[in-house]
Amino acid sequence: MYNSVIKRRSSVNRTSRMKSYLSTALSDFFFEYETPRQVLVRSKKVGIMCRLIQLLVLVYIIGWVFIYEKGYQSSDTAVGSVYTKMKGVAFTNVSGEERIWDEADYVFPVQGDSSFVVMTNYITTKGQAMGKCPELPNLKNSCKTDSDCEAGRSERTGHGQMTGRCMNSTNTCEVTAWCPVEDASKIPDPARLISAENYTLFIKNSVTFSSYGVTRSNLVEGIDSQYLKSCLYEQNNSPLCPIFRLGDIVKLSGFHFEHIAKEGGAIGIVIEWFCNLDYAESECRPSYSFHGLYGDPGEKDAAKASVGYNFRYAQHYMEDGVEKRNLMKVFGIRFDIIVHSEARKFDIIPTLTAIGSGVGIFGVATVVCDLILLYLLPKRQFYCNMKFKVTELNEEKPLDEFTEVSKEQS
Amino acid sequence: MYNSVIKRRSSVNRTSRMKSYLSTALSDFFFEYETPRQVLVRSKKVGIMCRLIQLLVLVYIIGWVFIYEKGYQSSDTAVGSVYTKMKGVAFTNVSGEERIWDEADYVFPVQGDSSFVVMTNYITTKGQAMGKCPELPNLKNSCKTDSDCEAGRSERTGHGQMTGRCMNSTNTCEVTAWCPVEDASKIPDPARLISAENYTLFIKNSVTFSSYGVTRSNLVEGIDSQYLKSCLYEQNNSPLCPIFRLGDIVKLSGFHFEHIAKEGGAIGIVIEWFCNLDYAESECRPSYSFHGLYGDPGEKDAAKASVGYNFRYAQHYMEDGVEKRNLMKVFGIRFDIIVHSEARKFDIIPTLTAIGSGVGIFGVATVVCDLILLYLLPKRQFYCNMKFKVTELNEEKPLDEFTEVSKEQS
Amino acid sequence: MYNSVIKRRSSVNRTSRMKSYLSTALSDFFFEYETPRQVLVRSKKVGIMCRLIQLLVLVYIIGWVFIYEKGYQSSDTAVGSVYTKMKGVAFTNVSGEERIWDEADYVFPVQGDSSFVVMTNYITTKGQAMGKCPELPNLKNSCKTDSDCEAGRSERTGHGQMTGRCMNSTNTCEVTAWCPVEDASKIPDPARLISAENYTLFIKNSVTFSSYGVTRSNLVEGIDSQYLKSCLYEQNNSPLCPIFRLGDIVKLSGFHFEHIAKEGGAIGIVIEWFCNLDYAESECRPSYSFHGLYGDPGEKDAAKASVGYNFRYAQHYMEDGVEKRNLMKVFGIRFDIIVHSEARKFDIIPTLTAIGSGVGIFGVATVVCDLILLYLLPKRQFYCNMKFKVTELNEEKPLDEFTEVSKEQS
Repeated sequence: MYNSVIKRRSSVNRTSRMKSYLSTALSDFFFEYETPRQVLVRSKKVGIMCRLIQLLVLVYIIGWVFIYEKGYQSSDTAVGSVYTKMKGVAFTNVSGEERIWDEADYVFPVQGDSSFVVMTNYITTKGQAMGKCPELPNLKNSCKTDSDCEAGRSERTGHGQMTGRCMNSTNTCEVTAWCPVEDASKIPDPARLISAENYTLFIKNSVTFSSYGVTRSNLVEGIDSQYLKSCLYEQNNSPLCPIFRLGDIVKLSGFHFEHIAKEGGAIGIVIEWFCNLDYAESECRPSYSFHGLYGDPGEKDAAKASVGYNFRYAQHYMEDGVEKRNLMKVFGIRFDIIVHSEARKFDIIPTLTAIGSGVGIFGVATVVCDLILLYLLPKRQFYCNMKFKVTELNEEKPLDEFTEVSKEQS
Repeated sequence: MYNSVIKRRSSVNRTSRMKSYLSTALSDFFFEYETPRQVLVRSKKVGIMCRLIQLLVLVYIIGWVFIYEKGYQSSDTAVGSVYTKMKGVAFTNVSGEERIWDEADYVFPVQGDSSFVVMTNYITTKGQAMGKCPELPNLKNSCKTDSDCEAGRSERTGHGQMTGRCMNSTNTCEVTAWCPVEDASKIPDPARLISAENYTLFIKNSVTFSSYGVTRSNLVEGIDSQYLKSCLYEQNNSPLCPIFRLGDIVKLSGFHFEHIAKEGGAIGIVIEWFCNLDYAESECRPSYSFHGLYGDPGEKDAAKASVGYNFRYAQHYMEDGVEKRNLMKVFGIRFDIIVHSEARKFDIIPTLTAIGSGVGIFGVATVVCDLILLYLLPKRQFYCNMKFKVTELNEEKPLDEFTEVSKEQS
Repeated sequence: MYNSVIKRRSSVNRTSRMKSYLSTALSDFFFEYETPRQVLVRSKKVGIMCRLIQLLVLVYIIGWVFIYEKGYQSSDTAVGSVYTKMKGVAFTNVSGEERIWDEADYVFPVQGDSSFVVMTNYITTKGQAMGKCPELPNLKNSCKTDSDCEAGRSERTGHGQMTGRCMNSTNTCEVTAWCPVEDASKIPDPARLISAENYTLFIKNSVTFSSYGVTRSNLVEGIDSQYLKSCLYEQNNSPLCPIFRLGDIVKLSGFHFEHIAKEGGAIGIVIEWFCNLDYAESECRPSYSFHGLYGDPGEKDAAKASVGYNFRYAQHYMEDGVEKRNLMKVFGIRFDIIVHSEARKFDIIPTLTAIGSGVGIFGVATVVCDLILLYLLPKRQFYCNMKFKVTELNEEKPLDEFTEVSKEQS
């Protein structure tokens, strides 16, 4: 290409030379093609080693990037919706008072969220009304004289605002509060709603992979209303039944129901959707797993901070024109349903990117072989001469072309 | 580089040779530069084909990776906050009892979450109190003698704990339960709060792309309090108004209000923020879309499992010192507001990675052309000779350098 | 490889030729290895420039991709669970009525969600019952005659359904509603629960990086129950204490408590887990930051749309057989706890991909140098001759091999 251009240079005028140059360059560009010149090194040692390295790279690219990591696919995560529903009743008999707890009583919040608490134990303080009463006797609240109880002050962990009086009966400050104040020091043991173990949880989950336009429900093919009436989730026998016994969930999470029920805790229910959409859509099915998040006192060590899960909840009512409330300190198991989804499908972009990277990495094999060839082998000078052509150009005084080219042969 | 080093080797002592070697190698390294030797193949067929393949690769890299997939940009997803507020009242007249339902009555939960339920239908069981009463007559609960009703047992789908008695009046077991037990077999049709169609939903959504330090609200430029007072979302005319009529949402989701209102369902409201931050920030605007998640009985087929959305909810009160409750079985539409966000901005890293991959893929074109050149063309022997130089080195007995190099010319 | 094959071609029959060809090709393939032939350009200018460009590329690859962007690591985001608990009491005295507000009264929802509202102000409408009463007098609801009040109609922003009567006393339509209707026009100022500033929020957060099998809690090493009893979060002194004073959160978010408490607002609490799992797991610690999302009227401008955060909430009770309710319009601060997590760990795949891309980009340096060498330098013809070998093949009439090869030397 360049030779031919150069040869014509001196014989024509500038404009026609330019035009001729361009048309030649263009036709040259389209009718020519460049390919690197290679040295075929005939050496058993280097040859085998180089092929081995190339094989390793190839195995890595095909085996790892393509087969294991599925580099030829793009991936997408789903947006989903979870709806839960508890079923089951518990019966308590606290000092002769029989009571039934149904789903409207023991689930917080009521509306079937993906994160909810099932009450398993409680301390109730009935008939609280606004008034003045002494604080609970404990280390922080004790007082000796009225001067220990500054009027208008309220402790962060107290129940109300101090009136300024120290009560002799309890040696604690009097407070304006919901009276009588709650005494939550003794947690019922065993848990009062220990029968929560037999409640069942129904989960409905739909996921949408918007990139691929695929929507799936955990009520997959074969899970019809007939099956739902009788099935119960078991890891091996019925892994797709979306009805779970609470006791099973807790056991699979590694916790113990009697422990967690007493002081409360949190369990994560992970619904995993790993779908290879290169196969049929109906093979895109969920799998469930259960993870204890915190709260099993069975794993308690002395310094363990803040075990358990509890919150306070009040039912307000009017009695003789006075607002009263029943305060409940609820211990419960918090269930967090976490949808973890990834759909994969063949895509040309990641495939080509992986190939492109692969070609780059393939080049590394040649670089390594070259290093061995040129620096480690006894015949390295010989290979150097084969691979490299040196331009011994003295930049100050230009040599004629022939002289330089002839140097290559020396 | 290597020639010059070798030549000097024998003439100097070891230390100075080492020094001289190093300094020469260093100056060689900085003043030299390696470029691959190429064969310019002058062949119309191969040339055109090669250029075509290269063109394809170039078009792919520029057109697909850069323009379509915007490979020159990095991306970030946002963290956001959603606040919702319902407006509107419904009027019911159930057997002469007139009642108004306002937002404090029909939204669960009350505090404006991004996932909430709007009540559209209900079955109410008033004045339940703890006691003993017969179970509902249905297939599962029927009994003939007391022995069918094991004392202390409770059915998963029952309302309480059996006392051990079989009631003659209903032929069902007697249970300790909230009495009278709820009979939810007949769902009011049409839905009692069918006028929920005219409720409006106001959505406030702010998103923060922390990588780019950009915070946007769905109350974009031009959405001021004056506009909010009168606007209503319409896909074409006012796509940025954040006030939605419930009936419109259901229609746009592909469901029918009269169907979904009766038994409940779930609808996803997706707020999409796809922002190209290479443009002005004010062009980063949300778009709304609506997806029916489940529950339209209009699409019901016989085997369809678990249609509808409902939950139970109790209002507790004290009457004459006895705790009572009004139980509501609430059917409603669950709205899940899902924020889907992606901001993109020019970034040097993905750009260079894309170019790097591109160069790698570009090399594939040469490889393909080489295969054709060396294996398919009639003149393949000729091209082979041009491209390859073979070292016919017998590894056992070394030849002098000149002999070997001369082989190249044979 | 090709020479040897060709030479043997004519002398043997076809089958043995095929076998010999294959075995030779195979042994050639394993005992040979190809390496590109290079020109070593001895030119100070080009050499230095080329090395500089290569240095830049190297610095970019190592410095940016590897060190800054940590391209040698894979990353994973966590699934987590957040549990919150408020502590503290507020005291209000509204027209002589003293009242204590504790956590069961001021947190919505009660069960310790990651997104919750703390009431800071309220308007209460006590003793509402179903009935007929006039609408509030304001611009929209005024009427002059009964014909202005179409029976059965209900305004979107009204409180009930019109009965068809225009009331003379107020000049507004009569509605069937919860009566008396709420008048929320005057927001108490200062906020009634301004002492909410001293409430404390306890956050428990556990995150699981499932790819790496690592679970961490924000109660990291050293945060035991002893420390939790006394600590309070401070950005500098105790950045790991998970107990936060509400006033501090609001201040750190850039808002003013007295402003946001009055009309409500939203604040994001971001827990950031950026963990380099190449180091010890115990160095994987959270950091907290606070972002005002919306609602500080201090930043109000006239056109600012929809400031504040409020919702309505009703407590129902029975009085003399009539259902009544106390309606609360609650103004509060919504806290959204957002967990932002990324764990990084050395991984061979991204490392090799980065190297692969790097090799690709490295090639760009040679391309740039070649362009300079072949088009800009005065000696470009000379370098062209060194780099390129041209096949002057006339495709119509084939030349014998020797003639063509000899052209290379011309």
